[in-house]
Amino acid sequence: MEVKELLNAYQAGERTPEGVVRDVFDRIETDGTNAWIATRDQANVLAEATELDDADLTENPLYGIPFAVKDNIDYNGLPTTAGCPAYAYEPEDHAAVVDRLIDAGAILIGKTNMDQFATGLVGTRSPYGECRNVHNEAYISGGSSSGSAVAVAREHVAFALGTDTAGSGRVPAAFNGLVGLKPTRGALSTRGVVPACADLDCVSIFAQTTDDALRVEDVAARFDPDDPYSRRLADDLELSKTCLSDITIGVPAADELEFFGDNEAAQLFDDTIDEIAAQFGEPTTVDFTPFRKTAELLYGGPWVADRLSAVGEFIETHPDEVNTTVADIIRGGKEYSAVDTFEAFDQLKTLRREAEQVLAKIDALVVPTTGTTYMIEAVQSNPIELNSNLGYYTNFVNLLDLSAVAVPTHSFDAGPSFGVTIIGEAFEDARIASIGAAIESEATRPTRSTTKPISSSSN
Amino acid sequence: MEVKELLNAYQAGERTPEGVVRDVFDRIETDGTNAWIATRDQANVLAEATELDDADLTENPLYGIPFAVKDNIDYNGLPTTAGCPAYAYEPEDHAAVVDRLIDAGAILIGKTNMDQFATGLVGTRSPYGECRNVHNEAYISGGSSSGSAVAVAREHVAFALGTDTAGSGRVPAAFNGLVGLKPTRGALSTRGVVPACADLDCVSIFAQTTDDALRVEDVAARFDPDDPYSRRLADDLELSKTCLSDITIGVPAADELEFFGDNEAAQLFDDTIDEIAAQFGEPTTVDFTPFRKTAELLYGGPWVADRLSAVGEFIETHPDEVNTTVADIIRGGKEYSAVDTFEAFDQLKTLRREAEQVLAKIDALVVPTTGTTYMIEAVQSNPIELNSNLGYYTNFVNLLDLSAVAVPTHSFDAGPSFGVTIIGEAFEDARIASIGAAIESEATRPTRSTTKPISSSSN
Repeated sequence: MEVKELLNAYQAGERTPEGVVRDVFDRIETDGTNAWIATRDQANVLAEATELDDADLTENPLYGIPFAVKDNIDYNGLPTTAGCPAYAYEPEDHAAVVDRLIDAGAILIGKTNMDQFATGLVGTRSPYGECRNVHNEAYISGGSSSGSAVAVAREHVAFALGTDTAGSGRVPAAFNGLVGLKPTRGALSTRGVVPACADLDCVSIFAQTTDDALRVEDVAARFDPDDPYSRRLADDLELSKTCLSDITIGVPAADELEFFGDNEAAQLFDDTIDEIAAQFGEPTTVDFTPFRKTAELLYGGPWVADRLSAVGEFIETHPDEVNTTVADIIRGGKEYSAVDTFEAFDQLKTLRREAEQVLAKIDALVVPTTGTTYMIEAVQSNPIELNSNLGYYTNFVNLLDLSAVAVPTHSFDAGPSFGVTIIGEAFEDARIASIGAAIESEATRPTRSTTKPISSSSN
Repeated sequence: MEVKELLNAYQAGERTPEGVVRDVFDRIETDGTNAWIATRDQANVLAEATELDDADLTENPLYGIPFAVKDNIDYNGLPTTAGCPAYAYEPEDHAAVVDRLIDAGAILIGKTNMDQFATGLVGTRSPYGECRNVHNEAYISGGSSSGSAVAVAREHVAFALGTDTAGSGRVPAAFNGLVGLKPTRGALSTRGVVPACADLDCVSIFAQTTDDALRVEDVAARFDPDDPYSRRLADDLELSKTCLSDITIGVPAADELEFFGDNEAAQLFDDTIDEIAAQFGEPTTVDFTPFRKTAELLYGGPWVADRLSAVGEFIETHPDEVNTTVADIIRGGKEYSAVDTFEAFDQLKTLRREAEQVLAKIDALVVPTTGTTYMIEAVQSNPIELNSNLGYYTNFVNLLDLSAVAVPTHSFDAGPSFGVTIIGEAFEDARIASIGAAIESEATRPTRSTTKPISSSSN
């Protein structure tokens, strides 16, 4: 279920939004991946789809396209839970970005499961059930935007919004064989999104292809004067595929690559790099140190206090209704002083300058999206360390104000997909997505089509 | 002693750098304003000036111009004290900005007095003696760049560098009848400058005219890859006077103006506004609330922890060698947590957006540089509150990433000058300086020339 294909089918009169919506609800009904927290009333959605039949297809770039949003993004009509039923509230307005998508003809189906308060990269930290990997239910889906990824991978919807602060829009894309576009910070409004670290939070996009993701971003990205984190340049982003020539890809030096003992992942990355070399020429080895050190700063630094600022009071007054791992992590924010914060900001400034010098020599940095994958059971018995491992290649991106797109390239023998992330400077969304498109077309498609999804009756 | 006049005199062969330097040292020798912490060895400076006689005047935009730097800016050849003898170190390199000025032919005379660790707007917080106002020695000079302002006002040097985090480059300009240019954050490198709040610190320029200040900034402003706070756009700044037409000046609504009971200051501001109206048309009244709230955030918020990060350890290990007021203020940074910091940053983001909307409707905001002035004695008996009062119109500028130029317009009956500050968005340095030039030419010159400086023998 691709956006582009659906639009073509509508154009050709082969399908109708109403028929697509019926199919969507049928598929969701028989699914057992814990992808959804809530879906809208089917009759209402059908009515909306029927009304749309009269709308002009050419004037609505997302005409009749079913989509989902992570449950930390407001939709007036369903509660926002942020993965915590006791936290739920009924939003009076849609999030600004949801408004834009609906205005463009997209049809919201419902709200998806997530690591509570968007705190996690695993998909197991939710009272709505652990999100299961679409290729092997014993494996994690990745998180925190777990349900959004799974809902797209299961073809319940054509695209879904997640959020991405430390990697939540990329890790679940990698494990479920999808594209995860983490736009430039401030390109998509975060008004109406539950904050994790307000300065870093991005709304992200899951889709089957980078083409689709870019198409959605083109509708969604817009300067929002009522969001203090929105950036004016969002209006100038040209979000269409760009011509690629003379592209220099950078990859981390071997001694900075980390696969946590997972030789299969190391091999899959090598294979991907070979495919990239065939397209773009031999990648340049770059110094990954500033990126790695920035990633360490996020986990070992004061930013967790920003989460405490957002939900700390709720956690203290509802100790029994919060995931204990999540609560422990967020409470860790109390350890940090203002001095720690300013010192970390100062370190970050220096690392940002170093990263800039690395990026100036290449067109994009390519890293594994994750260095390995895990079974749900393993994460349950070691929830902090394994989660941290998954952020090795993702944590630095928003701190350094970069744009990124995760694309799937291969699969682990056990089923879960493996992928790489293409990283560029802020406002280079179109360029990195275009590089991503080239990489996925070379590597992914054959892999993905031969990967058999788990049966929905298995759960 | 203006830069432009000196250059003309050199060009005409009426004066030589050597002669000017001799005069400078003569004037400094008989001065009693506590402006200087250290001057260079006169013989060395003379040798430098003599060498310069052979240099091409046209290739050195600051050929033979004597200047001073605040003693928190490194010059290899004199210790950097930051206003605290026990803190002194011998820098191995000049500060980046000092290098640029010397390369352009300017001659450093020495290092100037300051509120210790650049913490203060008064000029009384220095073990090197209270800096005295050039028009009445019973009055404060303003700070923290007190000596740099006084050295220019006394015509010891043609320009001087200060630093400006909360207003230190503007308040002493106002009280001593000078121009104080606070460039866009990151336009002038802060490499080799003792940090106060690294993210906010600016090197500032004191001069007799905005023309001179802009000329110095044109030499000094440059992207510095080795300063993590430097900004690339510094290279694109066009620092020459711009043509002014159809200029809309904004002024705070009357109920947000604060003169701390000083009716004379209120009257001087009214007079200035009348003069501005005669040039640019009636100013527009704007909502000053976001600016005022931001100013409150600086004093009531976590930023003081950044000063603690810079010099906290020194203060704890040298309790008897630090100004007690300064030490108490900086220790206040311990009160703030990481959560406080992120919350303040979040508030700031919102205030920034509100300020932006105000500034979008005008070409520049004009405020009193200070709402009143004080006698040294008054500040000594109430050092915190009176200091805070002086920041009412200055504190918000760097937090909101604005550029500003303070110009003198009138004088208090007791002698000290009164002035206004013209404020614009970042990178609008040339535009606000050009507006400043128009205001000072209308208002200042007659006032300044009739104000008799105190006799140097009085101290």
